[in-house]
Amino acid sequence: MLARTPDAPPGVKGISLFIVPKYLVGDDGDMKGRNDLRCASIEHKMGIHASPTAVMAYGDNGGAIGYLIGEENKGLQYMFTMMNNARLAVGLQGVAIAERATQRAASFARDRVQSRDIAGTDARPVTIVHHPDVRRMLLTMRSLTEASRALAYLAAASLDVAQRHPEPEVRKARQAMVDLLIPVVKGWGTEVGSEVAAIGVQVHGGMGFIEETGAAQYMRDAKIAEIYEGTNGIQANDLIGRKLTRDGGATAKAFIARMRDIDAALEATGPELARLRAALTEGLLALDSATDWILESQKGDPRDAAAGAVPFMRLWGTVAGGWALARGAIAAKAELDAGGGDETFLKGKIVTARFYGEHILTRASSLKAAATAGGATIMEMAEDAF
Amino acid sequence: MLARTPDAPPGVKGISLFIVPKYLVGDDGDMKGRNDLRCASIEHKMGIHASPTAVMAYGDNGGAIGYLIGEENKGLQYMFTMMNNARLAVGLQGVAIAERATQRAASFARDRVQSRDIAGTDARPVTIVHHPDVRRMLLTMRSLTEASRALAYLAAASLDVAQRHPEPEVRKARQAMVDLLIPVVKGWGTEVGSEVAAIGVQVHGGMGFIEETGAAQYMRDAKIAEIYEGTNGIQANDLIGRKLTRDGGATAKAFIARMRDIDAALEATGPELARLRAALTEGLLALDSATDWILESQKGDPRDAAAGAVPFMRLWGTVAGGWALARGAIAAKAELDAGGGDETFLKGKIVTARFYGEHILTRASSLKAAATAGGATIMEMAEDAF
Repeated sequence: MLARTPDAPPGVKGISLFIVPKYLVGDDGDMKGRNDLRCASIEHKMGIHASPTAVMAYGDNGGAIGYLIGEENKGLQYMFTMMNNARLAVGLQGVAIAERATQRAASFARDRVQSRDIAGTDARPVTIVHHPDVRRMLLTMRSLTEASRALAYLAAASLDVAQRHPEPEVRKARQAMVDLLIPVVKGWGTEVGSEVAAIGVQVHGGMGFIEETGAAQYMRDAKIAEIYEGTNGIQANDLIGRKLTRDGGATAKAFIARMRDIDAALEATGPELARLRAALTEGLLALDSATDWILESQKGDPRDAAAGAVPFMRLWGTVAGGWALARGAIAAKAELDAGGGDETFLKGKIVTARFYGEHILTRASSLKAAATAGGATIMEMAEDAF
Repeated sequence: MLARTPDAPPGVKGISLFIVPKYLVGDDGDMKGRNDLRCASIEHKMGIHASPTAVMAYGDNGGAIGYLIGEENKGLQYMFTMMNNARLAVGLQGVAIAERATQRAASFARDRVQSRDIAGTDARPVTIVHHPDVRRMLLTMRSLTEASRALAYLAAASLDVAQRHPEPEVRKARQAMVDLLIPVVKGWGTEVGSEVAAIGVQVHGGMGFIEETGAAQYMRDAKIAEIYEGTNGIQANDLIGRKLTRDGGATAKAFIARMRDIDAALEATGPELARLRAALTEGLLALDSATDWILESQKGDPRDAAAGAVPFMRLWGTVAGGWALARGAIAAKAELDAGGGDETFLKGKIVTARFYGEHILTRASSLKAAATAGGATIMEMAEDAF
């Protein structure tokens, strides 16, 4: 637990980290009975019921004994080390829930029979995976999950390079890229978790609303990931603040340039990926100009950038996710052309990336508009008009 | 209950509607004891716990007695009368949950103290309603709620005109407009309910995930409205199908023209609503061209329009909602200029409409892209690649 420590020097936050065991053990190694702590109540949460959240009461009967972890008055620092490490993991939690929701929905859609095929003449009902709107939902789930997973893996791999590469320059550049990516992976990855899990319930129809089916739990569980280890609003503020501005946008611009480098390879694949290529080009343009706008606006009223921080974080995730899927599609096409690999899997990768270009990457223009709308309207609302 | 009736004539669906009372009463008016029915199980649902859903067992012990409602073999027709009437009500259910979520989140944001004002020099923490991102969330909630409520009211008022206007021509035109609006109010209104309720949880941070706070219940309750009385996918198919095509798009086009008529009044209000005007103009352009595309595409493969039906339904709601808020802003400005009314309320209306123009109406271009992407990519995915 974190607790206030007395007699902290002036200017130092007197908060230290303690471990407070349930049972006390004496110097002789013998159990001395219970420590002075108890669970005062367990919270009723919407989800993650396997992870109990409790109000703990310490020292009601004279005082609990705790053991200092690390150094005195460094408790907050230690907590932020944990929090920073947890952000990548929580982003991946969003991806993981999205993946599970996608698998369950796809399995249900291949099984559930309802309504005839609108393209056929046969009046008999078919499995719902034949219906275009169900396919739209499943491909939204699948493409968002794959895109957010690719970004999480990119962050994780970059973290390894940042820690182990022999060249200090490479380590430094990769660490800057990790720092930029982490709030995007946490913020966008967890929004993807919630969006995908909610679509999963929808694919199931009325069955999805029944807890026994399992789809509803993903939706209830996914929401916490947008909130804990720093809400997504805090992630977005971290992105537009320290992560973007400390090097004047150099890391962000280098990443955008790297994403643009894919264009020639994408063009070389021919007409199959032409629409994805157009959507990616447009998305990168939106991301680039929004990045410029955020950097420029921060020279003035800080509320302008803050008002658009979350849409800006979404824009990063959406466009970088599209780039990641485009890389995958190029690789899949190369393998298919070479006549190797699992054809269903590789073709699925290409179709998923194309779908993302048509239905998800096209969100970029709207996100850019919201990211760069500024704070004037938002701040003009009177407090008691809300 | 609906039950199969024997001996239906050929070509007639032998389904009739019965009332099956729990207790039987004899011709003498005396209670004859329980009817042969029981509740076999109560479903565990994600939300709407005040509305129990049960598996009912009839006739386990020899046969339950039911009384025919209306005529034999017309059960399905009666059910669809109920369903059609329920669609407007379910759309309004989405709006109502959104309103309640908005009120609770605004009240929490005015109360909860966290972090300093980023625009000030004072290091003391302020209520979170001062933070731009919280305001963005609250205005998203408020503007979506007001826009979807305005559309639901428009549908309800049009229904009255369609039923009671002395001129048959006006009645007919208004009925066609109601028919077009109903799937939009149901589909988009319930999506607004879910979107707004989820943001409400986010405004509360960790507290929102605790059931005692109340915000989580709205999110759990809202989801069913997207599903029952015809899923939103079914609503969208109704919109692109019968509602749009039966008069070759004439009603849709007339409605778009009516929405465009607001432009001169919007321009006359001056620079304050200039950005809203630009966003509405662009939104109407997107809606108009998407409507043309859907109409045209239906001459070919029906899966092209079906693949974009839900984004098309969202596009209708988003743009018509923006038009409704713009009407409100013009009226509010006129009243303010005349020196009357509640200033905080009227200014709130104008700011809310402006926000919608900057953050919500700007979704139109993305929705149009998804609505008109066609079905080729979606249908290309192999069934076992999902």
